[in-house]
Amino acid sequence: MTTPAPAQVPGDTAPPPAAPPGPGAGPAPSVFETLESEVRGYCRGWPTVFDRARGSRLVDEDGRAFLDFFAGAGSLNYGHNNAVLKRALLNHLERDGITHGLDMSTTAKRRFLETFRDLVLRPRGLPYKVMFPGPTGTNAVEAALKLARKVKSRPGIVSFTNAFHGMSLGALAVTGNAAKRAGAGVPLVHTAPMPFDGYHGADASEPFAYFERMLDDPGSGLDRPAAAIVETVQGEGGINVARPEWLRGLADLCERQDMLLIVDDIQMGCGRTGGFFSFEEAGIVPDIVTVSKSISGYGLPMSLCLFREELDIWEPGEHNGTFRGNNPAFVTATAALHTYWADDALEKQTRLRGEQVRAGLLAIAAEHPEAVVAVRGRGLAWGVQMREAGAAGRAARRAFDHGLLVETSGPHSEVVKLLPALTISPADLDEGLRLLACSVREALREPLG
Amino acid sequence: MTTPAPAQVPGDTAPPPAAPPGPGAGPAPSVFETLESEVRGYCRGWPTVFDRARGSRLVDEDGRAFLDFFAGAGSLNYGHNNAVLKRALLNHLERDGITHGLDMSTTAKRRFLETFRDLVLRPRGLPYKVMFPGPTGTNAVEAALKLARKVKSRPGIVSFTNAFHGMSLGALAVTGNAAKRAGAGVPLVHTAPMPFDGYHGADASEPFAYFERMLDDPGSGLDRPAAAIVETVQGEGGINVARPEWLRGLADLCERQDMLLIVDDIQMGCGRTGGFFSFEEAGIVPDIVTVSKSISGYGLPMSLCLFREELDIWEPGEHNGTFRGNNPAFVTATAALHTYWADDALEKQTRLRGEQVRAGLLAIAAEHPEAVVAVRGRGLAWGVQMREAGAAGRAARRAFDHGLLVETSGPHSEVVKLLPALTISPADLDEGLRLLACSVREALREPLG
Amino acid sequence: MTTPAPAQVPGDTAPPPAAPPGPGAGPAPSVFETLESEVRGYCRGWPTVFDRARGSRLVDEDGRAFLDFFAGAGSLNYGHNNAVLKRALLNHLERDGITHGLDMSTTAKRRFLETFRDLVLRPRGLPYKVMFPGPTGTNAVEAALKLARKVKSRPGIVSFTNAFHGMSLGALAVTGNAAKRAGAGVPLVHTAPMPFDGYHGADASEPFAYFERMLDDPGSGLDRPAAAIVETVQGEGGINVARPEWLRGLADLCERQDMLLIVDDIQMGCGRTGGFFSFEEAGIVPDIVTVSKSISGYGLPMSLCLFREELDIWEPGEHNGTFRGNNPAFVTATAALHTYWADDALEKQTRLRGEQVRAGLLAIAAEHPEAVVAVRGRGLAWGVQMREAGAAGRAARRAFDHGLLVETSGPHSEVVKLLPALTISPADLDEGLRLLACSVREALREPLG
Amino acid sequence: MTTPAPAQVPGDTAPPPAAPPGPGAGPAPSVFETLESEVRGYCRGWPTVFDRARGSRLVDEDGRAFLDFFAGAGSLNYGHNNAVLKRALLNHLERDGITHGLDMSTTAKRRFLETFRDLVLRPRGLPYKVMFPGPTGTNAVEAALKLARKVKSRPGIVSFTNAFHGMSLGALAVTGNAAKRAGAGVPLVHTAPMPFDGYHGADASEPFAYFERMLDDPGSGLDRPAAAIVETVQGEGGINVARPEWLRGLADLCERQDMLLIVDDIQMGCGRTGGFFSFEEAGIVPDIVTVSKSISGYGLPMSLCLFREELDIWEPGEHNGTFRGNNPAFVTATAALHTYWADDALEKQTRLRGEQVRAGLLAIAAEHPEAVVAVRGRGLAWGVQMREAGAAGRAARRAFDHGLLVETSGPHSEVVKLLPALTISPADLDEGLRLLACSVREALREPLG
Repeated sequence: MTTPAPAQVPGDTAPPPAAPPGPGAGPAPSVFETLESEVRGYCRGWPTVFDRARGSRLVDEDGRAFLDFFAGAGSLNYGHNNAVLKRALLNHLERDGITHGLDMSTTAKRRFLETFRDLVLRPRGLPYKVMFPGPTGTNAVEAALKLARKVKSRPGIVSFTNAFHGMSLGALAVTGNAAKRAGAGVPLVHTAPMPFDGYHGADASEPFAYFERMLDDPGSGLDRPAAAIVETVQGEGGINVARPEWLRGLADLCERQDMLLIVDDIQMGCGRTGGFFSFEEAGIVPDIVTVSKSISGYGLPMSLCLFREELDIWEPGEHNGTFRGNNPAFVTATAALHTYWADDALEKQTRLRGEQVRAGLLAIAAEHPEAVVAVRGRGLAWGVQMREAGAAGRAARRAFDHGLLVETSGPHSEVVKLLPALTISPADLDEGLRLLACSVREALREPLG
Repeated sequence: MTTPAPAQVPGDTAPPPAAPPGPGAGPAPSVFETLESEVRGYCRGWPTVFDRARGSRLVDEDGRAFLDFFAGAGSLNYGHNNAVLKRALLNHLERDGITHGLDMSTTAKRRFLETFRDLVLRPRGLPYKVMFPGPTGTNAVEAALKLARKVKSRPGIVSFTNAFHGMSLGALAVTGNAAKRAGAGVPLVHTAPMPFDGYHGADASEPFAYFERMLDDPGSGLDRPAAAIVETVQGEGGINVARPEWLRGLADLCERQDMLLIVDDIQMGCGRTGGFFSFEEAGIVPDIVTVSKSISGYGLPMSLCLFREELDIWEPGEHNGTFRGNNPAFVTATAALHTYWADDALEKQTRLRGEQVRAGLLAIAAEHPEAVVAVRGRGLAWGVQMREAGAAGRAARRAFDHGLLVETSGPHSEVVKLLPALTISPADLDEGLRLLACSVREALREPLG
Repeated sequence: MTTPAPAQVPGDTAPPPAAPPGPGAGPAPSVFETLESEVRGYCRGWPTVFDRARGSRLVDEDGRAFLDFFAGAGSLNYGHNNAVLKRALLNHLERDGITHGLDMSTTAKRRFLETFRDLVLRPRGLPYKVMFPGPTGTNAVEAALKLARKVKSRPGIVSFTNAFHGMSLGALAVTGNAAKRAGAGVPLVHTAPMPFDGYHGADASEPFAYFERMLDDPGSGLDRPAAAIVETVQGEGGINVARPEWLRGLADLCERQDMLLIVDDIQMGCGRTGGFFSFEEAGIVPDIVTVSKSISGYGLPMSLCLFREELDIWEPGEHNGTFRGNNPAFVTATAALHTYWADDALEKQTRLRGEQVRAGLLAIAAEHPEAVVAVRGRGLAWGVQMREAGAAGRAARRAFDHGLLVETSGPHSEVVKLLPALTISPADLDEGLRLLACSVREALREPLG
Repeated sequence: MTTPAPAQVPGDTAPPPAAPPGPGAGPAPSVFETLESEVRGYCRGWPTVFDRARGSRLVDEDGRAFLDFFAGAGSLNYGHNNAVLKRALLNHLERDGITHGLDMSTTAKRRFLETFRDLVLRPRGLPYKVMFPGPTGTNAVEAALKLARKVKSRPGIVSFTNAFHGMSLGALAVTGNAAKRAGAGVPLVHTAPMPFDGYHGADASEPFAYFERMLDDPGSGLDRPAAAIVETVQGEGGINVARPEWLRGLADLCERQDMLLIVDDIQMGCGRTGGFFSFEEAGIVPDIVTVSKSISGYGLPMSLCLFREELDIWEPGEHNGTFRGNNPAFVTATAALHTYWADDALEKQTRLRGEQVRAGLLAIAAEHPEAVVAVRGRGLAWGVQMREAGAAGRAARRAFDHGLLVETSGPHSEVVKLLPALTISPADLDEGLRLLACSVREALREPLG
C-alpha cells in the first residue's frame, strides 16, 4: 500500500547552520556538575551541551547535529521550533500580547478555545468542558483525580501496571515505577493497580473478568473506586499498546460499575498515534481526558483537563495554579491546530510514517531474533524490547555516538523507545532507523559490563 | 528620608497604543462561559477580555487600559512584557535556541546557572544546589517535601496556619485553606499546622514554646516531623508578615529539633520584599528554598528547588517532569538577573516604593478607622485588612470599575492585597493608591448584599 | 473406611435439665430493644433469651433446648461449659488463683506456656515464641500486622478476597467485607487484596502467577508488602477451603519474595479442621500465627500471637493490653490441651465426624441439585452454598424454629455454615443434619420475600 | 472533716494463707524467658511468679504477699477475687449459665443491662444506649471512633497531649506515646493532638482559645474533626487531672463546633475518681463514653461503648467481635453494681480514702522538696511526679522489694502512680504509703545508674 505524502502539512525544514561556539564553551560543562542537583537525568545519557534546534535536528554548542527520535518525550510532535508556530509566537510577543494571564479571559485564550472547539471537539462529537489546570501534565492528572473523587465521593482510583502519570503526590500514587514511588517519602495510598492489556496472566479473551469480579464481590476487599486512569499506549511503561477492544471493554466496565474513565493522553495525544486523541481509534469517549506535552506544539508548558459537561462541578478556584494561563502557549497551540488539524492529512501521514518505522524495526528484530523480544507501537510511538535489559541502554548510548537521540523505557529500561516528530521526513526516518540498526548491532556485540 | 530613584533600573515603559478590536470580539465572551470549566476564577472578578500588556498596564480588547496592582499574583515583578527581557527572548527564539530541553544540558541553562550562581548565590553566601523540578510552584513544593522526607526518613511536615503552598496533593496537604483542602477528595495527612507569627493565642515573646514542648514531649502525640515549611510573608493567607526574630526562632528550633526548614519563597522571593530572597532580612539560611513565579521575570513557567549541598541525595530522575527545562524561561531569567540583580539598586527602590504604598494605605486606614483593621506588608507586598469580610471584595470590584486591578486574600477574603510590579513608577503607584482609596470609600458606602 | 470412636476423648455430656423461668422473664425482652445498641446482630436471627448451656445444647429461659451447630462462631470447639474444663476453672477461682494478671508472671500462665510448648509446639517442631496480645482475635491480628511491618520496615500487607480478620482499624483493613469496611469511617489503606484459592479467574495450575509478576515487576505499582495474611479456610468468607498445594505455593512465594506469611488461625485453629493448627496438613510453617476463639476452650477471651523466634524484636510493652493476662482462660486452656491434645484421638475423631457431616450435606445437595451450588469444608467446618442468596438465610431461620442453630456466611450470606463442637456425638450430628435437611427443604419451598 | 467509713461496703478481706510451692516452681522461671515474647513488660519490674490474690494482696508462689497499689492498672477497683462477686460467678458457672454468648440475648446480659440502667444510667439522667464492642478497652475506643466518624462523615479526631487510648490501629492513632506510636509500623493519621489542661503554654483562663481559633479559621489547616476524645484524668499520661471547668469548656466547644465529645472512662470510670463516671463531677454529658477495666469488677474482660440514643445509627453487625458477650463478666458486673452502686457509700468512701492518700503523698513531697515536682490526683488515682525521671522507676523497684506494687507513668516514666483498690482498708493504705515513703527515700539516696 502506498500513500502519497500529503503536501499541505508543513514538515521539518532544514537544520540551522552550525553555530559558532558559545561564549561559555569550554572543556568541562562544570556548572551542571557542580551546581545542578544530582536528580538531573537526560543530560547523563546525552553528554553534550545543546544550543539550537529545528525540526528533527538538535545542534550542540560545538556545532554537531543530532537527529532527534525522542522529540522532548513526545512534547515536540511538530518538531523543534516549528517555523509556522514560531511566526505566530513572535507576532504575539512583538505586539505585547498577554504573556502571563492567570485564568483571566484573554484574546489568545479565546482564540485557542474556539479553535479547539471547532477543530478538535466538534468534529469528533466530544462533549467536553475545558479546564486549564496548570501547565504540566502532572497538574492535569492531579485535577482529573480530584474531580473524579469529588464527583463520586470515593477516594479510590484504579491504575494499571507500568502506568506513568506524573511525579506530584496525587499523580505518583497512580504511577507504577517502584523507584519513583519510593521517592514520595510517604506511603502512596487510595490506589490499586490492575493488569494492563496483555499483562502476564491476563486472559486476553476475558481481560476484565478478575477486575470485575472484585468489583461485583462485596467481600473482595477492593473498595469501589471513583475512577480508572489509563494510557492507551504506555510510553514510560515500555510502549505497551492496548488493543481497541480492551479499551472498549474498560470503558464498558467503568460505565457498568459506576466508575469514571480517565484517559491520560499526555504523551499519546495530539496526534502521536495518528488521530488527535489516541482513544479515537477505539471509538470510546472517556469521562475525563488529560492533555499536555505537544498541545502547545512548540514545547511550551501547557496542559488541559477535559471532562464531560455534567462532571463540571468545580467551585471557582477550587483548583488553580499560577501558570495555568500561559498565553504564548495558547498562541502556538492555536497555530498548531490550524496548521495540522484542519483536515486529516497529518493523521494519514503519521500512519504512513509509522509503517515505515515498523518495517525498519522488524528488520532489526529479524537480524537479532535471540536478542529482540518484541516490536510494538502505534502511529509514531514505537518500542523495541530487548531480552537482556542492559542491551537497550547500550544501544541508546551507541546511537548518541552516531548522532541519534533515542531513549529507553519499560520497568527494566529494556525497551528502546522511538518518538520522532510527526513532521519528520521519510529520509530522516530512514537515516535514524539505519543508525539505530547499527547501534543495536554494536550494542549486542559489546561485552556485558 | 529621601532616596533618589536608581537610574539604572529599567522601569515600566509607556503602555502600548490601544489595539483595534480583535476579530472575534463581540458582545458576549461566550466561549469562556460555554466551554471553559466552572473552575475559572479571576475572570469572574475582572469581567473583560485582556489583549495586550506592558509594564504595569493591561489593555483589554476594547482598548481600555487597567493599572495592574496584582502583577500575575507576583509573577511579574518586572512588569508585563519587560522590554529588556523581551529582546533577549526574541533573540533566543529567532536564532532557534532550544525551546524544550527536558533536563538536557543547554547553553541557555548553563548561562542561567552561572548567572544565578554569580549574582544570587555567591554574593549571599548561600550553599545551595539547584534543582529544576518542573516549571510551577507546586512542582517545586512537591520536590521539597519529597526531599525532606527522604533525607529524614520521616513522613511528617509541619506547616503554618493560613499557609498556601500549592494545589497538587503533596502541596495541598500543607495548605491551610479549607475549601481547597476539601477539593482533594481524599483526607490530607502527614501534616500538622502550627500557629504562624502573631496568630491568636500565640505568645509573641515565646512563640515556639508550645510547638517545642510538643516536640520535646515523647507523649505529645505529635510525631517528629521531617521539616517545617513556611512563607516569610503569607500572600494568600492575607499578607501576614513574620517578624525576623520569629523566623530566626523557627530556624533555631528546626536545627535543635533535627528538622529541615523549608522556606517557600515562590510569591515573596525574587525581590518582592526587597532582597532577592525574602528570608535574607532575617539572616537565616533555610535548608530548602522553593522559587517560582517571578524567577523567569517574564511570566513564563519556571521554578527552582534549592537546597544545601549535603541534602542532594536524589537519585537521577527520582523526580522529573516534562517541562523542567523551559529554555525560553532560562533566557529571560538570565536577562532579569543581569538587569535587576547585578547590584542593590532594585532592592533599595523596592523599599522606597514600599514606603510610598505604606503611606497611602495608612491614609486609607486613617480615613476609615472603624472599617480597616490593619495595614501590613513588606517591600511591595501589602494588605489592608477590612473588619467586614465582604468589604474587601466590594473594594476590589469598585477598583476594577475604576481601572485598577487588585485582589483579595485571607481566610475570609477580608484583605485587599497589593502586589504591584517592582518596576512601577511612583506616579503609577500614586494613581493606583488614589483609585484604591476611592474604591474603598465607595465599597464602605455600598449597602451590604 | 471405618474408624472406632476414640474412647478417651471426653465428649458432650447430657444437656442440663430445663431451668425454671428466670426472674426477669416476660413476654417482651424489652431491655435489648430499648437499651442495647442497634449494632446487635445474632440476637435478631435467634430471637430468644438463652439461659444455660452444656455441650452442644443451649437452653433458653423458657426451657427450650437448641442444638448448637455454631459453637460460638468456633469459640467452643469442646462444647459449652465442658465439664473437665469447668472443674479446673472452679478450682482456680475457689482457691483465689490470680484472675487478672496484666502480663505479670503467674503460675497459671507458666502452666499454660509449658503445656502449650510440650503438647503443641514441640511435637510439631514449631519454632515459635508466644505473645499474649490482648484477649481477642482482632488484638492478635493487630499485633501480627505491627510486628510484620516492624520487621520488614514496610507498611503494605496483602490479604485475600473474602478474608475476615477483625474489626479494629488495623485488622479491618485486611478484611474484605465492604459493609464492615465502610464502617471504618476512614479509608482503609496499606493493604491490597489478592485472589484466594479458587477465586474466579485464578488459574488453578499457576495461581500465583499474577501476584508474583506484580511483585517481580518494579513497574507494577504494587509496593512490596511486609507480609501476606491468610486463612486456610475462610469462615466468614463462606467456608472457602484453600488447597494444601495452594498454601505451600503461598509459603514458597512469601519466602522467595522476602515477605512474611501470617496464618490467621483464629477460627480454624484449635482442632477445627482436624490438626491443632489448620496449616499442619499443608506442611507449612508460617512466620506468624494468630490464635484465639477456642484456645481457652471454655469461651473465655484469650488470644495468642505466635512467631518465629528471630522475629521477636518487640520492645518491652511496645504492644500491650489490660486483659492480656486473663488467667482463668489460661487455666481452662491448659486443661483443654491436656484433655484433648495429649494424643491424636481428637484429631482423628474430627476427621471422622467431618465425613459424617460431608455425607449429610451431599445428600442435601443431591436432593436440590438446582438450588445447591457447592458443599465445601474441612474437619468440622462446613458450608452449603445456595444459588439464591436469600435461601441460606431462610434455611437458618427455619432451622432455629426446629431447634437448630446454624449461621450463614459468604459475601452475599449465601452459604449455610456449620461449625459444630468437635466433641459433638454422632447422634447429635445426625439429628442436626436431619433438621438442616428439613429446613433447607422448607426454605426452598418458601415464596421469595 | 471526718467521715465515718460507710459500713455497708464490702471491703477487702484477709489475704489467703500462704500457698505451698507450685509443682513447677524452681529457681528460674525459665519458660517466661525462653518462650514468652520480649514484649512482656510488667513481669520485668515485678520479678516473681504470682499465684493467688485476695483484696489488696497478691501472693507469689513462694508465699510472699505483696500489697497491691496498682489494682490491675485500674481493673480491680473492688480488689482481687472480691468475695461477693466470686460467689455470683461460681453460681453462674456451677449452674452452667451461658459462658460465651456472642451477642445473643441471654438472661445474664439482661440482668446486667437492667441493673446498669437502674443503678447507673437512670439515677444520673444519662440518655445512653449500650453497645458491647468486644471485651477490651481498645475495642471500645475503636467502636467509639468509628461511630463518631460515621455520624459526622468526617475522618478527623482530636486527642490530647499524653493521652492513652489503646494499642489497636484506630486507638493508637489517638494515643500520644511516641514509642507505642512507632510500633504501629504505618503512619498514624486523621488525628491531631491538642494541649490537655495545664499543658505548658496553655493559658489556664482561656485554654481553648487556640483550638477554637483553629476551628473557626477556614485557613487554619485543621480539618474539622468528627470528635474530640479525652480522659478526665490521664492515667498513663502521668495522672494529669483536668479541672471541671476545663471539661465543661471542652464540652461547650464541642457543641458549638459540631463535634462529638468522647470521654474515655476506661481507667478513671467505675468509681476510680469517686462517682461512677469520672465526668459526673464536671456536670457534663459526653456524647460517647467508653468503659472497660473495672466494669466487670472481677478483672474479667468486658467493655462498653455508651452513646446518646440519637447517635445509634449502627447497622446490625457493623462492628462485632467474638467475645463481646462475655457472660461471666456480665454476672460479676451485675453483682458489683448491686454491691457498690446501689447508694453513694463507695463514692463517699473513695473520696475519704483519697484524702488519706493525698496527705501521705504531700508528706513525701514535703520531705523531698527538691526531688518531688508535684502531687496530683482525684479519688483514688494519684501520682507523685519526680524531678529526675529515673527516680520514679527506682522508687517502684524499691517498693517491690518492700512488698508494695506501684507503677510509673508519664511521658518520661517520671510519675509514681497509685491506683489502689477502692475497697482497700485505711490500715492497708497507711502501710502502703509508709512503704512508699521509705522507697522514695531510698531511691533518692541511690547513686544514679
